[in-house]
Amino acid sequence: MRDVFNFSAGPSMLPEEVLLEAQKEMLNCLGSGMSALEMSHRSKTYDAIHNEAIALFKELFNVDDSKYYVLFLQGGATTQFSAVPLNLLTEKNGKKADYIVTGNFASKAYEEACRYGDIKCLANTKESKYSYIPDVDTLEYRENTDYVHITSNNTIFGTRYTKFPNVNNLVADMSSNILSEPVDVNKFKLIYAGAQKNVAPSGLTIVVVRKDAVDNCEPLPFTPILMQYRTQASKDSLYNTPCTYSTYIAMLNFRYLKKFGGVEAIYKQNKYKAGLLYDYLDNSNFYTNIVRKEDRSIMNVTFVTPNADLDAKFVKEAGQNGLVSLKGHKLVGGLRASIYNSMPVEGVEKLISFMKKFEMENK
Amino acid sequence: MRDVFNFSAGPSMLPEEVLLEAQKEMLNCLGSGMSALEMSHRSKTYDAIHNEAIALFKELFNVDDSKYYVLFLQGGATTQFSAVPLNLLTEKNGKKADYIVTGNFASKAYEEACRYGDIKCLANTKESKYSYIPDVDTLEYRENTDYVHITSNNTIFGTRYTKFPNVNNLVADMSSNILSEPVDVNKFKLIYAGAQKNVAPSGLTIVVVRKDAVDNCEPLPFTPILMQYRTQASKDSLYNTPCTYSTYIAMLNFRYLKKFGGVEAIYKQNKYKAGLLYDYLDNSNFYTNIVRKEDRSIMNVTFVTPNADLDAKFVKEAGQNGLVSLKGHKLVGGLRASIYNSMPVEGVEKLISFMKKFEMENK
Repeated sequence: MRDVFNFSAGPSMLPEEVLLEAQKEMLNCLGSGMSALEMSHRSKTYDAIHNEAIALFKELFNVDDSKYYVLFLQGGATTQFSAVPLNLLTEKNGKKADYIVTGNFASKAYEEACRYGDIKCLANTKESKYSYIPDVDTLEYRENTDYVHITSNNTIFGTRYTKFPNVNNLVADMSSNILSEPVDVNKFKLIYAGAQKNVAPSGLTIVVVRKDAVDNCEPLPFTPILMQYRTQASKDSLYNTPCTYSTYIAMLNFRYLKKFGGVEAIYKQNKYKAGLLYDYLDNSNFYTNIVRKEDRSIMNVTFVTPNADLDAKFVKEAGQNGLVSLKGHKLVGGLRASIYNSMPVEGVEKLISFMKKFEMENK
Repeated sequence: MRDVFNFSAGPSMLPEEVLLEAQKEMLNCLGSGMSALEMSHRSKTYDAIHNEAIALFKELFNVDDSKYYVLFLQGGATTQFSAVPLNLLTEKNGKKADYIVTGNFASKAYEEACRYGDIKCLANTKESKYSYIPDVDTLEYRENTDYVHITSNNTIFGTRYTKFPNVNNLVADMSSNILSEPVDVNKFKLIYAGAQKNVAPSGLTIVVVRKDAVDNCEPLPFTPILMQYRTQASKDSLYNTPCTYSTYIAMLNFRYLKKFGGVEAIYKQNKYKAGLLYDYLDNSNFYTNIVRKEDRSIMNVTFVTPNADLDAKFVKEAGQNGLVSLKGHKLVGGLRASIYNSMPVEGVEKLISFMKKFEMENK
């Protein structure tokens, strides 16, 4: 059992079992006599790690191997903010894409895309402090776009899509909720996610992309070689040296998730954990969550106390009690509990106990 | 003492002391109660790691803080093959750069740059199997170029610059020999290096760039946001989530190198290790190294036995004796011993003993 529960928005907690395995294997990974930190990405041992990690991801995320490439890349979601338009915008369609802006990262993705094509913002919820997800059925999607871009979970604001746009070219940044709930991958043209929330330490970025979007498309002519999906798709993500250790930890974490029962099982636990927190918040006159109920994230729970001084006091005292990184993002202030897959139920229970005590003492 | 000596071209060995420290801290890094794999890149603990790693690098590499930015990035040297021209080519100079092609990666860097500007290849040693470094004093550098690009050590072929072009806008890919020998950084406009040979596990890329080349220049207009040096220079390399664990291991490894005596001390040891191997090769009628003597790398020692079958047998039997990853790159075949900073003298001695035995048995 761990002493510290880390509610960071990412990088974030990993299962204790995964850390213990990594610790045990630190000087001798899979019997190789080498650390996973040291081994050549062209070695047999690393090849086994790479292949197992990708195979387990496909199995857990239910990816149809015949229709999608799964790429293990570097550079985080921010790199994908550029790579998505650079690879998917086509002259044929007039380089058109639609974006739904539901938070800070959605906004950054949109701004970056605007540099490369004819980009339309279908909706922007900034005026309401990004506190809800717009009704995706009433938006004015354009004809013949190359893609429609959403951010499936908004880390900073604590919102989440529970229903996706009904289009055949959907692209989603799933950095903060990939593998936290079942997703029908076949509805998407492309899904991308930084690993550092639900998968592994930072450094690894996963891209799931429909094969026809890679095989039948030319990236824009000035696209850097490594940002072209076809470069990595043709080399099974080993065109250059990948971020090997993150892939190794991803493999251990996927093994753990599979043993746990897969995405359905973790989804059940995620709903339970989030339910505990939201129920408590809803019954409190001290803490407030401003997100529209039906759009609440089950990964990032945002809330405030009656004032900013108390928010700061909360962060400090929580930290002294082993509940760390509860400060809200600097853009919004307040408090945020990120409760990704690897946050134990016990961590949430401890947080609620602390919240009750803090409420009593500061009411 | 380790049982396996890993002669991989990268990722490659790390000091046992570094691995033991990482192992010890796996569940509790710097007293935080968290693993370095898990902690937020905005946390105080990670901030201390980030700052210490960068400060130690500057100290060890002797970087003038007032003149250079040191950036800790992602994506490997391959990403820099694009980023260098995208950031440094200027309309003012007609987007001109000169490249010296002394190996496979130098060639890839050159090809990528050709997509973005008026690029001249000053010399290409491919015809001689990249077995030497051209005389840099007799090359026809153009006037008013944005930069001249070299690859300071050629991993695949085992060559190394011992003298640099005398120009004021030199750019070097130092992936395979950074921190292995003293370098006068002030002679360079930009230096870049993937971490996975002499620094840390893969995932981290270090860029040292003259401040005026960032502050007074516009990247080409279509440069992805994260590939623009100014994006990361203005945010101390924390614009987005960095590859945190590689930076943590880099910090541990820099501490180790400092205690060892810094770059001068490791250079002495590197020369000694390479000397042992080359002396043995030069006195053998069985093994051959084709590199011109004065251009021999002290990081990557390439050689062949009398035939390819024996090369394969060598790799197999060496592996059975705990000497692994000795196969030459697929482009050249043969054998290669990469003996980066962290390869112990003992590893080289064991390799030579094995080579002697193999020679006797197969002559």
